[in-house]
Amino acid sequence: MLDDVQVVAFDIFGTVVDWRTGITEQVGAVFADRGVALDPAGFADSWRDRYLPAMARVDRGEREWATLDALHRESLDELLAERGIAEAVGEADRARLVRAWHRLPAWPDSADLLARLRTRYVVVALSNGGFRLLTDLLKAAELTVDAITSAELARSYKPSPAAYLTTARLLDVEPHRLLLVAAHRWDVDGARAAGLRTAFLERPGEKGPHREADRAADVTCDIAATSAAELATRLGC
Amino acid sequence: MLDDVQVVAFDIFGTVVDWRTGITEQVGAVFADRGVALDPAGFADSWRDRYLPAMARVDRGEREWATLDALHRESLDELLAERGIAEAVGEADRARLVRAWHRLPAWPDSADLLARLRTRYVVVALSNGGFRLLTDLLKAAELTVDAITSAELARSYKPSPAAYLTTARLLDVEPHRLLLVAAHRWDVDGARAAGLRTAFLERPGEKGPHREADRAADVTCDIAATSAAELATRLGC
Repeated sequence: MLDDVQVVAFDIFGTVVDWRTGITEQVGAVFADRGVALDPAGFADSWRDRYLPAMARVDRGEREWATLDALHRESLDELLAERGIAEAVGEADRARLVRAWHRLPAWPDSADLLARLRTRYVVVALSNGGFRLLTDLLKAAELTVDAITSAELARSYKPSPAAYLTTARLLDVEPHRLLLVAAHRWDVDGARAAGLRTAFLERPGEKGPHREADRAADVTCDIAATSAAELATRLGC
Repeated sequence: MLDDVQVVAFDIFGTVVDWRTGITEQVGAVFADRGVALDPAGFADSWRDRYLPAMARVDRGEREWATLDALHRESLDELLAERGIAEAVGEADRARLVRAWHRLPAWPDSADLLARLRTRYVVVALSNGGFRLLTDLLKAAELTVDAITSAELARSYKPSPAAYLTTARLLDVEPHRLLLVAAHRWDVDGARAAGLRTAFLERPGEKGPHREADRAADVTCDIAATSAAELATRLGC
């Protein structure tokens, strides 16, 4: 247990919701409608692979602030062109696919985990998703947090320190009283570098059957948990 | 009904929670502890009276951005000095009184009203209270919204347009798709001037038995409701 922690901030994509299943399903539906014969899961993986590089360009100042919706749309357009299906997948489908990130299934234990932690801590979202995206996502998945914060409020993406420290400032806590929970090493590393406390929550299925998700044994953090139940228990809930 | 509205933003103090009862109770407890013989309700009213002028100084640029906690503390210090009880009410009591604004009772119909509107709309808080204050307040009162927005995110207080338009930007809606619900004419007027749709919700008891709250008949707005049930019905919920 971390006695001085007051606020717990949850990463969302991969940590609380299963983006790969949700996006694969939506991509599959569009491909079926348009007669595209590509593998939807592979397409979802390639799309997600462009996530970190696109945000890093914003954080390095190589481009102006843009929401994740805008970055998703740009990387989708590139990917459709590269795969030779730019003609098949038109404007309405592209808008639908970008919106797919606003509606993703929760991991089966997420609602219970958030509820348990809310009995003892202020629990917030802290994601690179935009403010509206996160609002839609948590509402649709019926997940309750005490407040939503987003990289959009800092206009700076995780793992940049500003993204974490903006949440600390808005929640009026010193960084060491704010605990980030994430399933990704890069996120935990960024939070630790900004002075936060960190918890790694293993989500072995996040990247599907053919890719390795980050594992608790490989992460430097205050709490490394291999299940939601273990995390809740170690946080005294 | 307003067909193009997607997001409903609720003012909080007076509209969703009964600040006067909560603050009077906390002031009364401190006065009892310290042997102060003043009327707690009158003190609560005088404290609240300093709310709009203090924020207006920020919005006119006469002072830098300060959260409502900071403004509450300054006006409390002034008021205690004016009433001749600055000696009796020390640092710990003052901190406790400023924190009293983080924990106020909901009006009896608020939880149900928010729940009904959430079935059809994205429902958010939009208050001059700070982000942490609102997070604490809604959590303690067990009120659920889809997201919290605050004047703090705009660093500009209602009724300045920036406060309303920051919420519209974060929720990614044009101003006319955002409906403000408030029990105060000045708030409704500010929202309308910023291009929002507006609903006035009458809260006749807000200012106690000796002062007149704003009344629906006197307010220019899209929907004037004299009860929470009427508001929900007129919004199709």
